[in-house]
Amino acid sequence: MTGFCDNELTCDAFLGGSLHLYQPRHGYRAGVDPVLLASSVPAQAGQSVLELGCGVGAAILCLGARVPALRLTGIEREPAFAELALRNGGDALEVVTADLREMPLHLRQRQFDHVLANPPYFDRAASVASDDPARESAHGEDTPLAQWVKTASKRLAPKGQAHFIHRVERLPDLLRAMPHDLGSVEVLPLTARAGRDPDRVIVRARKNGRAAFRLHAAKIMHEGAHHDQDGKRYTPEIDDVLRNGAALRF
Amino acid sequence: MTGFCDNELTCDAFLGGSLHLYQPRHGYRAGVDPVLLASSVPAQAGQSVLELGCGVGAAILCLGARVPALRLTGIEREPAFAELALRNGGDALEVVTADLREMPLHLRQRQFDHVLANPPYFDRAASVASDDPARESAHGEDTPLAQWVKTASKRLAPKGQAHFIHRVERLPDLLRAMPHDLGSVEVLPLTARAGRDPDRVIVRARKNGRAAFRLHAAKIMHEGAHHDQDGKRYTPEIDDVLRNGAALRF
Repeated sequence: MTGFCDNELTCDAFLGGSLHLYQPRHGYRAGVDPVLLASSVPAQAGQSVLELGCGVGAAILCLGARVPALRLTGIEREPAFAELALRNGGDALEVVTADLREMPLHLRQRQFDHVLANPPYFDRAASVASDDPARESAHGEDTPLAQWVKTASKRLAPKGQAHFIHRVERLPDLLRAMPHDLGSVEVLPLTARAGRDPDRVIVRARKNGRAAFRLHAAKIMHEGAHHDQDGKRYTPEIDDVLRNGAALRF
Repeated sequence: MTGFCDNELTCDAFLGGSLHLYQPRHGYRAGVDPVLLASSVPAQAGQSVLELGCGVGAAILCLGARVPALRLTGIEREPAFAELALRNGGDALEVVTADLREMPLHLRQRQFDHVLANPPYFDRAASVASDDPARESAHGEDTPLAQWVKTASKRLAPKGQAHFIHRVERLPDLLRAMPHDLGSVEVLPLTARAGRDPDRVIVRARKNGRAAFRLHAAKIMHEGAHHDQDGKRYTPEIDDVLRNGAALRF
């Protein structure tokens, strides 16, 4: 995949307009999930953060917009996305164009306080391959989920935290993939509406953590019991995350 | 452990009095959890059911009280509990006194439509051994959780279902323990009060199931936000399960 022409791009506002991101008009596009992922990371000023498969940089740049003075690094294997991440992040984001299965030596020598990832959502075994290579790479699963978790663990500093967002269907795979040195696992389910089954999970784990596993009360995304009742109106807590860049606390 | 004298026993009403169970006055006592476990099993008249570690028979006899004409079998390694299960179940319950790690041949030759288990809740590695051997056996974990899951899978007929109830802390261990021929896993979290983190899970799996993993919306046990606000008043759905022997549908 080569770079995008400007007419193949859109420039979209995130966090109520405090962040603008160029991204391709077609194929995989950053939505709400990277924003939620970023909001769940309790990073503190001055810490280092690595995003695996950062795409155009949506998650890590949302985090950078909330927490000052972070040192941000994204790794993205598709050069056209990496180029957009660089364009979106400017001086605030170090972008490394590489496959996370073949982490360059200079990254393998570093440790980070936080690692985050929004791995591809579609299981190749259960889905049809796409004609669009960029979409395929984002939505297919040619890098096993376990590899994402293992790589995150390897790059974490002692007591550092990893955060992942994924479809709820993959929660068992995420949990099974946790290496022994990733513990204190917490799961935050995300539910479209009250009373519905959750469809997304944010999974937090701590390097060398030894606390018991926790399943949190689900966060509700939308007001009302039905889509047609309140449209897409978000609950106040989620609205605060999406529009004001608030932290999602759990 | 030898048998109990009658003055060491209590006779307790379950399901609003439609079931009475003798159980030891001290040590491990059946509470709400085996009743919830039983209520979650969608057994149908005429099917066969095996409970692993049935204790005094609370879960399997609750199931038998709800669904007519089940063929019920419990395996319990403590002879004193097995004796009570027999006393509680009468002709309705076949009790096999055996360790589930050394399943007798006549059980190994049979398959069941449903297998259920309420395994011991305390991880020996994280808790102090008890002086009471019966309590120790129920609350310690000398039979690994993975063994319970593997044994359940082995005894299930094709498309048969297994149900477990456990503390939420053990959910990752339960999921990791699922052998490849147990699928269509569903998790029902149980939460004391609305907005709280769940503290128990019921895990359902189907032999040879291939459906995606599901995490259900949590069931709320008690009304009100605080213990002192509504005391121990149950929500209508849970009250219907505990008093009227209703099914817990998910």
